[in-house]
Amino acid sequence: MPSTTVLVLNGPNLNLLGTREPSIYGSGTLADVERLCHDTAGPLGLTVDFRQSNSEGALIDAVHEARADMGAIVINPAGYSHTSIALMDALAACDLPVVEVHLSNIHQREEFRHLSYVSKVAGAVIAGCGPQGYALALQRVAALLGTPTA
Amino acid sequence: MPSTTVLVLNGPNLNLLGTREPSIYGSGTLADVERLCHDTAGPLGLTVDFRQSNSEGALIDAVHEARADMGAIVINPAGYSHTSIALMDALAACDLPVVEVHLSNIHQREEFRHLSYVSKVAGAVIAGCGPQGYALALQRVAALLGTPTA
Amino acid sequence: MPSTTVLVLNGPNLNLLGTREPSIYGSGTLADVERLCHDTAGPLGLTVDFRQSNSEGALIDAVHEARADMGAIVINPAGYSHTSIALMDALAACDLPVVEVHLSNIHQREEFRHLSYVSKVAGAVIAGCGPQGYALALQRVAALLGTPTA
Amino acid sequence: MPSTTVLVLNGPNLNLLGTREPSIYGSGTLADVERLCHDTAGPLGLTVDFRQSNSEGALIDAVHEARADMGAIVINPAGYSHTSIALMDALAACDLPVVEVHLSNIHQREEFRHLSYVSKVAGAVIAGCGPQGYALALQRVAALLGTPTA
Amino acid sequence: MPSTTVLVLNGPNLNLLGTREPSIYGSGTLADVERLCHDTAGPLGLTVDFRQSNSEGALIDAVHEARADMGAIVINPAGYSHTSIALMDALAACDLPVVEVHLSNIHQREEFRHLSYVSKVAGAVIAGCGPQGYALALQRVAALLGTPTA
Amino acid sequence: MPSTTVLVLNGPNLNLLGTREPSIYGSGTLADVERLCHDTAGPLGLTVDFRQSNSEGALIDAVHEARADMGAIVINPAGYSHTSIALMDALAACDLPVVEVHLSNIHQREEFRHLSYVSKVAGAVIAGCGPQGYALALQRVAALLGTPTA
Amino acid sequence: MPSTTVLVLNGPNLNLLGTREPSIYGSGTLADVERLCHDTAGPLGLTVDFRQSNSEGALIDAVHEARADMGAIVINPAGYSHTSIALMDALAACDLPVVEVHLSNIHQREEFRHLSYVSKVAGAVIAGCGPQGYALALQRVAALLGTPTA
Amino acid sequence: MPSTTVLVLNGPNLNLLGTREPSIYGSGTLADVERLCHDTAGPLGLTVDFRQSNSEGALIDAVHEARADMGAIVINPAGYSHTSIALMDALAACDLPVVEVHLSNIHQREEFRHLSYVSKVAGAVIAGCGPQGYALALQRVAALLGTPTA
Amino acid sequence: MPSTTVLVLNGPNLNLLGTREPSIYGSGTLADVERLCHDTAGPLGLTVDFRQSNSEGALIDAVHEARADMGAIVINPAGYSHTSIALMDALAACDLPVVEVHLSNIHQREEFRHLSYVSKVAGAVIAGCGPQGYALALQRVAALLGTPTA
Amino acid sequence: MPSTTVLVLNGPNLNLLGTREPSIYGSGTLADVERLCHDTAGPLGLTVDFRQSNSEGALIDAVHEARADMGAIVINPAGYSHTSIALMDALAACDLPVVEVHLSNIHQREEFRHLSYVSKVAGAVIAGCGPQGYALALQRVAALLGTPTA
Amino acid sequence: MPSTTVLVLNGPNLNLLGTREPSIYGSGTLADVERLCHDTAGPLGLTVDFRQSNSEGALIDAVHEARADMGAIVINPAGYSHTSIALMDALAACDLPVVEVHLSNIHQREEFRHLSYVSKVAGAVIAGCGPQGYALALQRVAALLGTPTA
Amino acid sequence: MPSTTVLVLNGPNLNLLGTREPSIYGSGTLADVERLCHDTAGPLGLTVDFRQSNSEGALIDAVHEARADMGAIVINPAGYSHTSIALMDALAACDLPVVEVHLSNIHQREEFRHLSYVSKVAGAVIAGCGPQGYALALQRVAALLGTPTA
Repeated sequence: MPSTTVLVLNGPNLNLLGTREPSIYGSGTLADVERLCHDTAGPLGLTVDFRQSNSEGALIDAVHEARADMGAIVINPAGYSHTSIALMDALAACDLPVVEVHLSNIHQREEFRHLSYVSKVAGAVIAGCGPQGYALALQRVAALLGTPTA
Repeated sequence: MPSTTVLVLNGPNLNLLGTREPSIYGSGTLADVERLCHDTAGPLGLTVDFRQSNSEGALIDAVHEARADMGAIVINPAGYSHTSIALMDALAACDLPVVEVHLSNIHQREEFRHLSYVSKVAGAVIAGCGPQGYALALQRVAALLGTPTA
Repeated sequence: MPSTTVLVLNGPNLNLLGTREPSIYGSGTLADVERLCHDTAGPLGLTVDFRQSNSEGALIDAVHEARADMGAIVINPAGYSHTSIALMDALAACDLPVVEVHLSNIHQREEFRHLSYVSKVAGAVIAGCGPQGYALALQRVAALLGTPTA
Repeated sequence: MPSTTVLVLNGPNLNLLGTREPSIYGSGTLADVERLCHDTAGPLGLTVDFRQSNSEGALIDAVHEARADMGAIVINPAGYSHTSIALMDALAACDLPVVEVHLSNIHQREEFRHLSYVSKVAGAVIAGCGPQGYALALQRVAALLGTPTA
Repeated sequence: MPSTTVLVLNGPNLNLLGTREPSIYGSGTLADVERLCHDTAGPLGLTVDFRQSNSEGALIDAVHEARADMGAIVINPAGYSHTSIALMDALAACDLPVVEVHLSNIHQREEFRHLSYVSKVAGAVIAGCGPQGYALALQRVAALLGTPTA
Repeated sequence: MPSTTVLVLNGPNLNLLGTREPSIYGSGTLADVERLCHDTAGPLGLTVDFRQSNSEGALIDAVHEARADMGAIVINPAGYSHTSIALMDALAACDLPVVEVHLSNIHQREEFRHLSYVSKVAGAVIAGCGPQGYALALQRVAALLGTPTA
Repeated sequence: MPSTTVLVLNGPNLNLLGTREPSIYGSGTLADVERLCHDTAGPLGLTVDFRQSNSEGALIDAVHEARADMGAIVINPAGYSHTSIALMDALAACDLPVVEVHLSNIHQREEFRHLSYVSKVAGAVIAGCGPQGYALALQRVAALLGTPTA
Repeated sequence: MPSTTVLVLNGPNLNLLGTREPSIYGSGTLADVERLCHDTAGPLGLTVDFRQSNSEGALIDAVHEARADMGAIVINPAGYSHTSIALMDALAACDLPVVEVHLSNIHQREEFRHLSYVSKVAGAVIAGCGPQGYALALQRVAALLGTPTA
Repeated sequence: MPSTTVLVLNGPNLNLLGTREPSIYGSGTLADVERLCHDTAGPLGLTVDFRQSNSEGALIDAVHEARADMGAIVINPAGYSHTSIALMDALAACDLPVVEVHLSNIHQREEFRHLSYVSKVAGAVIAGCGPQGYALALQRVAALLGTPTA
Repeated sequence: MPSTTVLVLNGPNLNLLGTREPSIYGSGTLADVERLCHDTAGPLGLTVDFRQSNSEGALIDAVHEARADMGAIVINPAGYSHTSIALMDALAACDLPVVEVHLSNIHQREEFRHLSYVSKVAGAVIAGCGPQGYALALQRVAALLGTPTA
Repeated sequence: MPSTTVLVLNGPNLNLLGTREPSIYGSGTLADVERLCHDTAGPLGLTVDFRQSNSEGALIDAVHEARADMGAIVINPAGYSHTSIALMDALAACDLPVVEVHLSNIHQREEFRHLSYVSKVAGAVIAGCGPQGYALALQRVAALLGTPTA
Repeated sequence: MPSTTVLVLNGPNLNLLGTREPSIYGSGTLADVERLCHDTAGPLGLTVDFRQSNSEGALIDAVHEARADMGAIVINPAGYSHTSIALMDALAACDLPVVEVHLSNIHQREEFRHLSYVSKVAGAVIAGCGPQGYALALQRVAALLGTPTA
């Protein structure tokens, strides 16, 4: 039976959430998002391991570690979405369900944000739902893992 | 106060759901999806008007009509996602929240399915969650409309 | 002697004129445009048959019918300008003068609106003159048909 | 045993055949083509259901209906060849042999006519044989269905 | 109240009009076009200052001068349409209404004539109406300036 | 009266037919194809001169020779379809009807097989019919040459 | 020992500085910029020859003349940056240090302003510093020429 | 009988010949080239009118003037080869034989020098022969004009 | 009043300065550059915090920290200029003036060095001035911050 | 002292000269061209070795052989111009002067004829002079070899 | 058990090895390379059949023959790497291990040498090791064939 | 005399070797590869320093350190091959022989894996030989360093 712990992984600059370009990203902080994730996960029978890093290598390391004892990954790869083949490879190498989240609708932003390498390996992509996107992603994970309350 | 009726609009070939390429689209039928939408909408304080058409013009007409008495649109534009500027214009012209749903993760399919004109005007995009994507989209709508139970 | 009836054909979403994005399209309605066409046509010795449809197939049908008893076509193909090779073929197949009209200057909008297939077969193109563009187009038609008062 | 009825489906503007640009399409009419199809089909043990529409949605509907009781589809998608992913999806969704026909050799015409989405799902493509292309297509169908006289 | 004098500016090679490729440009001369402009302008309450130059710099100078005492610019930029960012910048820098005119329908000519930098700053574009295009452009100017007889 | 001998010319690697990637090309050999051609040609009043070479120059030489005493060319240019401007020029230089045949539907294979230079000069193209494509091509030739039994 | 006179050359539309799109270019005039250049040059041991032209040919002529008795060129090629290979060639042909200046950061403007031909031959490029960019460019020149007070 | 005077027209920066990048352009001056042209023309029965300008407009003017009393044009458009549609149009508008000359082989230089608009209207192109190219071009002109000694 | 401390941030491989490809980057070391920055900053009323890292994540962290107590950022992003959307986002998220510096003129190097993501958010860009570029950048910062001695 | 024998090498389909598309290539035969070459070469102090092949490999072999005892190569690579990197490599490997000749102006033909790989290694290119191009090429060779009568 | 004879096949111009551009290809001759192959093969339990041709067709023929009695192919396709789909198809059709060798690192040469069609079907690619690349390729072959001394 | 220690550097995700997509990368682990490298290096007179990191910055640091006391670098840059200009610059800055290794043949994988920035600076590239590629790379290094037993 798969683990019910979900790695929720946040990429570069998301530590600034709430202070950076609020017209695009909203005024909630990353701590608010983490709280939302914990609140959502519980009733779904999931536990959340919530992390953020500005380092591509550290994000890859985190994905590798998740292989051992996590059941799924929810990832907001932020700026690395569009440039990191290495992160994409890491996600492909872990045999876990992956759900990709973007706070904004990246298809309405600059051309270079339209391609996400992560989307090539993620099972699902949720964009433009703001912080609620994390909650929706956890629901998707619950459905995939078949948790009792999913 | 905005209407709590949501137009759930399905594009070409979705009437074949469950019989067409089940490895991509699953084995549930469109009737199953409609039932899921009704079941999800109720507790969220929403009502669903569920439609499907293979005709681009009919889909545009449906969007126009929604302006009068609907509160939001959930749309799976299927094959027209990638070719219909007219449908995009119709959605932009209605001042309603729009959530775009794709059953499969279109970014993992043929190159010509990677661009969705609808994504340029939809507030949110949910792809690769199968029928559950409709339920997640309705939750997003409920949050945007601020329904009592959202 | 050619017919002096002109088909003035309007493409998708133009039925919303006056209510949709007035900063781009102005606040006059399609009925206003129709009245302007009739008012302009009379003194030029022309009669106007004014139609609108959101359906690509219906627009093609209308073009086909025009071959029998119309003298020219003024067309605002709207969103189908950029995607409909079938509509372009229909216009090419009718041996009538064709004048293309766009309310806005499409060259100042999104990249994907810069190419118009209809421009490849229309004799003339008038863009960015708002509703007046229809009146100018009818003058062009009158000159081409050589109506007495042209 | 598969049905021996073949849907012969004709796309936009083909109703004008014989009157439209005869230097490209010849002077025979669509009725002539229909007669040729019936004459060819009989000796091959096939029956032909011959249709034409200018509407993308209607063509898709016709393909869907063919799934129930036809054995194969011969399609001349005309202008929709190059723009309709929805029609391509419909053909892919019906598990029938599909043979694509073009009266002219589309590779010698404008650049935008070189790509046919339908070719991505059709088993065979026959271009540049004029009306005879329909007869050759029916022979191909007969071979695929293994009709007694094929 | 804005000036009612309109600069009608003609770009390179237009001095050859009537002698150059008449199958494309017609047999009227530039003097004929100038006469048409004066004849059209009078009843509209406009005065025309008609000029031509083969020099990009001279055209830019003319646009600069127009800022002082003209009310609008009608420009046929000819070959510089497609290559002159400097001319585009000059037009953008003068805060006057600009209407772009092309004798032929540039969208039916070579690929490199499809892009006009001037179209990016002109309010309106009229192409393919031959010399009549100048008259239509002056009508558009009159409407924009609100001249008494417009 | 034109010759009724048809050069059936086969390009590189077709000598391996039946042994090479049978899932794409089928299990019949080139000798089988030759027999099919002779069997088809007779009743159509045609004679077949059937050749194969792996050398671009030898194929060009064969086309040149055909000018003297053949009535038409059926060619499967295989790998040279996509790279040989010289072969295309040779076919254009012979004033004979040319029908291009591909065993597989090249539009469903790698991107670099989608362009055929030969298609720019062939009157007709038949792809995806397997060996039957040669028989269909001979029928087309018979129609073009107007053989008694065509 | 090289000349200490610097040609400061300004391209098209810069004569309008201070009146044209002040949100992009600021409100100082070209006379202000000239004064700044003289004020900066003196303490650096440099003399400035300050010119502007809207004519590509005149700018090329000015570059040619500089070869005789100038020590360096500071150039703001404005709209010709992106289109003039001839101006680029002129600068390459003079064996003088060249520093390119742009008032705005051209990389944040329209796509067609991102490429500067002049950058291919200029030793240095300074963009987005407003009029101060000229002063910085003169410092760079002083360093390159090794003036006593550099 | 056509005029035997040939306009030999030289574009921007060619006045620097012999001093500019001699490794590319050689050490002869433009006066040397002019002398070579006169020396070559005489025995061929031709007279040469030799000019140079850095101004696109002046080059266009010169082409226009040639229409009256010249028999052919030999042009080295230098940097304007690649950017001037206006110059190309001027050459197309004069109904004279045009031979294009480049001192260097432009196909071995930067990518942006590979396209010459002038080549689209010149009858012949001679590149990489250094100054001798002018002499060869005059021979071509003599052959085209059929001068007695050609 | 803004802080007068400036973060001078150096990207990957700049620690090798003076030893790496001196023909491109010169023979001064990064310590020399740092000394130049301190020497320049003092008289301008600025203090410099000078750092270098080969890690994209560490550079992003440094930018984040600067938000708290620095007044501006001077950045030489080196190899990350062309690939790091994450670094660009970090700079955009800090509401500080940003001046981008490149030792060499990147527009004269390989094609893939022509695009800098950092240029899309930096106020100014200075390239090709060698180490002096840092001094010029600090002057620009002083002007933006309005330090007393600027 | 270099050999004065010149290899004049002709590529595919040139054996058909005079019979193939005379509107493009003229009505002279390859034997006529050979005669012209011999007639031209003599007075220039050159001897001509004139060959033609339709085979890419044979052309490469001929180039290799020329290294031993020829002084220069004049080549009309015809259809292989645009596709043969191997032929380009062979020419680059022989340290002989190479002059490329095309009968027609390839820049006015199809897009795929605009690029010539041979032009990347030929010293000079002469196009659009018909058979006279060979004579001009031999003059260029004579100048390069410094033959007594050149 | 597979054959232990290896076809070592060399493409166009490799017969010139040692005399052609030694700065790129070194000064060893093809005979030296052949000797190295024999010397390497023996201890590995392999026999080498070493061939070279300038003809694409001959190379394809050689590949076809190898199918009968060889165990593997080592190929240096030289200039045909980038243009020969036919050669690629021949290699794909032989069910033998293929190792591709390039003397130089093709990724550091002209853009058009970066794509190798042969790489799409070769199991391994070794570039930039000079003649030693052949020896390394034979080691790879030995490992794949499992020769006793591999 | 150069150092005989070789840095063998492994990029992101290679720590997962043997567990990640074994159909592509094989079932050996990175420890197996390290052992193979040591076993190969000894007899060649080389010592191996074997490292892996998921961090781009750490890989760059390792390359920098190698400059001090290593003789060569063998690098498998994995996912950073295609995106890291910074890593490419680091390798270029170290004046050591570089051999690039890829376990799989990257030219047969996704389009975005076909370009390797590292290949632009590596002397040699070995792809598709699996772990044996490391051994072959070490042999190449031994040859370049001229170790006694090479």
